[in-house]
Amino acid sequence: MKVVVVGGVAAGMSAAARLRRLDESAEIVVFEKDEYVSFANCGLPYHIGGEIAERDDLLVVTPERLKQQLNISVHTCHEVTQIDRDQHLVHVVDRKQQRAFQEPWDKLILAQGAAPLRPPLPGIDHPRIFTLRNIADMDAIKRTVDGGASTAIVIGGGYIGVEIAEAFRNRGLNVYLIELQNEILPPLDHEMDRALIFHMERQGVGFLLGRRAESFRDVDGAVEVHLDDGSAIRGDLVVLAMGVRSESSLAHRAGLEIGERGGLRVDQHMRTSDPNIYAAGDMVEVTDTVTGSQAIVALAGPANRQGRIAADHICGRPSAYTTTQGTSVVKVFEMTAGGTGATERTLERANLPFKKAYVHHNGHAGYYPRTHPMHLKLLFAPDDGRILGAQIVGVDGVDKRIDVIAVALRAGMSVFDLEHLELAYAPPYGSAKDPVNMAGFVASNVLRGDLEQWFAEDYPVRMDGSIIDVRTPREYEDWHIEEAINIPLAELRSRLGELDKGETAYVYCKSGFRGYLAYRILKQNGFEKAKNLSGGLQTFLLSHHICMGCPEAGIPLITYAEDREPSTTQVP
Amino acid sequence: MKVVVVGGVAAGMSAAARLRRLDESAEIVVFEKDEYVSFANCGLPYHIGGEIAERDDLLVVTPERLKQQLNISVHTCHEVTQIDRDQHLVHVVDRKQQRAFQEPWDKLILAQGAAPLRPPLPGIDHPRIFTLRNIADMDAIKRTVDGGASTAIVIGGGYIGVEIAEAFRNRGLNVYLIELQNEILPPLDHEMDRALIFHMERQGVGFLLGRRAESFRDVDGAVEVHLDDGSAIRGDLVVLAMGVRSESSLAHRAGLEIGERGGLRVDQHMRTSDPNIYAAGDMVEVTDTVTGSQAIVALAGPANRQGRIAADHICGRPSAYTTTQGTSVVKVFEMTAGGTGATERTLERANLPFKKAYVHHNGHAGYYPRTHPMHLKLLFAPDDGRILGAQIVGVDGVDKRIDVIAVALRAGMSVFDLEHLELAYAPPYGSAKDPVNMAGFVASNVLRGDLEQWFAEDYPVRMDGSIIDVRTPREYEDWHIEEAINIPLAELRSRLGELDKGETAYVYCKSGFRGYLAYRILKQNGFEKAKNLSGGLQTFLLSHHICMGCPEAGIPLITYAEDREPSTTQVP
Repeated sequence: MKVVVVGGVAAGMSAAARLRRLDESAEIVVFEKDEYVSFANCGLPYHIGGEIAERDDLLVVTPERLKQQLNISVHTCHEVTQIDRDQHLVHVVDRKQQRAFQEPWDKLILAQGAAPLRPPLPGIDHPRIFTLRNIADMDAIKRTVDGGASTAIVIGGGYIGVEIAEAFRNRGLNVYLIELQNEILPPLDHEMDRALIFHMERQGVGFLLGRRAESFRDVDGAVEVHLDDGSAIRGDLVVLAMGVRSESSLAHRAGLEIGERGGLRVDQHMRTSDPNIYAAGDMVEVTDTVTGSQAIVALAGPANRQGRIAADHICGRPSAYTTTQGTSVVKVFEMTAGGTGATERTLERANLPFKKAYVHHNGHAGYYPRTHPMHLKLLFAPDDGRILGAQIVGVDGVDKRIDVIAVALRAGMSVFDLEHLELAYAPPYGSAKDPVNMAGFVASNVLRGDLEQWFAEDYPVRMDGSIIDVRTPREYEDWHIEEAINIPLAELRSRLGELDKGETAYVYCKSGFRGYLAYRILKQNGFEKAKNLSGGLQTFLLSHHICMGCPEAGIPLITYAEDREPSTTQVP
Repeated sequence: MKVVVVGGVAAGMSAAARLRRLDESAEIVVFEKDEYVSFANCGLPYHIGGEIAERDDLLVVTPERLKQQLNISVHTCHEVTQIDRDQHLVHVVDRKQQRAFQEPWDKLILAQGAAPLRPPLPGIDHPRIFTLRNIADMDAIKRTVDGGASTAIVIGGGYIGVEIAEAFRNRGLNVYLIELQNEILPPLDHEMDRALIFHMERQGVGFLLGRRAESFRDVDGAVEVHLDDGSAIRGDLVVLAMGVRSESSLAHRAGLEIGERGGLRVDQHMRTSDPNIYAAGDMVEVTDTVTGSQAIVALAGPANRQGRIAADHICGRPSAYTTTQGTSVVKVFEMTAGGTGATERTLERANLPFKKAYVHHNGHAGYYPRTHPMHLKLLFAPDDGRILGAQIVGVDGVDKRIDVIAVALRAGMSVFDLEHLELAYAPPYGSAKDPVNMAGFVASNVLRGDLEQWFAEDYPVRMDGSIIDVRTPREYEDWHIEEAINIPLAELRSRLGELDKGETAYVYCKSGFRGYLAYRILKQNGFEKAKNLSGGLQTFLLSHHICMGCPEAGIPLITYAEDREPSTTQVP
């Protein structure tokens, strides 16, 4: 059996290596159009930024080693230009030797990935406008920075845009980030990315949100970016991080079926519409775990596993890929953000009913040094409490909780299951009641009818009644919602007479916990229409884009030691 | 309804607080025999060690605040001495006011925890022999250290013993740890704790393993500990960390049913054999998730959740506690260790069939700075691959993987599910194929018959055939198993003629991955009896207690850059 693999990075090399392990006798040939195979593409921004000092560290394995250890023939700088499905051939151009040839195959695996978008705007071919996909791109950007650039402009606020902005700041450049939307990081809902924007601003990144780059102009070798509001901004280099599109043109020309999103359509065994041709990685369409709709998800983990499944199936094994839930994480200077499953935005788009809850708990025990509250948003089904998605933004322990909820979601768990998860606790690592347990408690309270919530976006338009701030007078004086009256939690039981039972009581505190206690008091004293602000002021301020104090620590308000929330570690 | 809670720390205060939230009208009284309630008992070693600088940080909440915010009457220094089940009374002694009284209850919750063991050895009442359970214990130990102690002796190598040993080293003391077994940390199997022992030794902790303390003698105010081998060791203070026993004597005297392990027997709603008396926390017996047997597990997470469940049930809710899987984690200087589910030891004891696999993968992408391989041991069912337990020892990202596997175990997942888990990946946080995925791959390979393993403990007694080291000649020269011949992986295909197909080929490499590739080559070339060393030399050396290089980094052997294993991130 002869297998040809087109593309030698994540999915392609995973497929080739797995094939060899399953079949010593197979002839395995990999064509990669760029200069390197199996390089660490997720590490590119970090070499530019200097955190990964050695370029060689990114070059994980060489064709020579792949030949020696896995007996795989890897050809770099070889582009496959055409697939002949009838003859079982690919047409290949060897860019180094300047020659073309045909290669036969019994099975073909396409793993060409996705290419950065580069829209046909005036001036976009300026030599200092880059995209970042491979080693050559990285080398070119790094060369430009090393050569003495002082200002960089990043267009696009997705994961790559944010990572490259950080890399440039680490190199001391002035950095501006232009983003068409009023928010960044599509895997996060708008109120969740706000802490990151505040944090990046404090780290010196300038944001131009809600603006479109319309054209580019050379000014003495630098690039002037012209925006849709008539303004312009000048930089020594520009990186386009505007998203990617599936590299499906070769497959398309060969008549393979393309899905509704422009990615290659594959079955659960990663077979395309031609049963002898497989595809894996960023170029294929997958089914979304939560919404069930088709999606193109450019993530290394699914790519690697898909490559493995394609190899399995070629070797006669029934391995199957199920769905992609889009679990992801990104480092943003001192912060970490990410999520799994659906966002509120995608659920609304898919017309799926959902409920949500926000909690703010420390990455580990508050009395052990170096922890911060994380913003955790949990989305769940209103009927059975099934987990639909989660997003977390914070400083320490964020990636852990994303993964914990990712496994729970994959297992089909509900918020009631989150209540009972038995997670590892010691003061440097967590709390006896982990933030994930806490999110489960709050969500379960909602579904059991023990808690009714109001949300930041209800203010001021969807509110009638009184707003009650149950924090201490000192906290109230620092900042409060304009219309709110102050009845500290400790006084609430004795001051119920000041309130009107017929009115809705919109309660809030800092993070939502004291508000919940107040809600329980009100509700059991005949205030049928009480509601508690989900996530408290911490979520409220971010939702309304109000920056106070140090949002990266999840504390947009000053906390006085005496005013600490009743510890949720000990007494939730 | 009047509820009396006996014990005001984790389980007790969780129960009391939850009760109040569910029932504004309940009268809730808490009696705590010590001076503080709801203190951070897991933080005690860290205040002694200086990491938690402020003693007040451990005092999470005061009786005054509990009264104000939750309307709970908390009485410290009040010991309950007797339960009158017929009259629904408890007899209470107020240690401060030196008075005794009786308190009526409708429902009673016992949450007295577990007490450190203090065996009746000669001299054990020496004033410088301490246990560490509460604030007063902590204060006494800290006072002794602050007063100029220079040598501390810790007896017992469980979690508390290890934490307190680290605390003393952080304070600059000479530290000796005496442990009856030849290993430490019972939640880990013996080969897993060895890296920790090596690491602690490098941090200056002296170990006296396999020795029993038999008596204590005063020498000018210091303590001389006499051991079973006739030797003695002298310290300025001694901390006993020899385990705990359920505080069940009050319950026992009241005729409540005690379980086979000496803990209080409760039903799923945390009810004792008296339906009006509940119990929660370290004093009760729970069912082990994996073995199904009864166990006493002193962990804060289960204690808190059990307290909550007792409160729920008292308020008429059907909340139920299921089982305890024993998820735990401990910081050991620069390292982290922990696990979830059963150990090999407990599975053998329970006569449950199991298989196991060891892997060694980095906490995050190897090319991104500051990561180390972690030792991961996975235990699974031979028939359906159900996860039975996992243990992890390493530097970075250990707590995350424990929690990921803890959730998977709780969900009833198998090793085949671990293969497909979609976990968050960016270079600072993980790998495209996470260590958990890798463990799933290896275990699934075993169950699918794609890999036969041999284990460190097979050497030398259970082996006949040839041992083949497939690392490079340079690695082989540094250290190899005495009888092994060296055939580097890259040469194996061309040197098959040197081997006897009829003999068992015991293959090994450094971490198990190259050995697996060699195994696949051999197996497909007619070497029916090939086997690969699970976990490679990294597990082998630790199993045989051979310390080389820097075991805390999981690298007991020098790694040359050119000899790097084929990257499992890119090419597994």
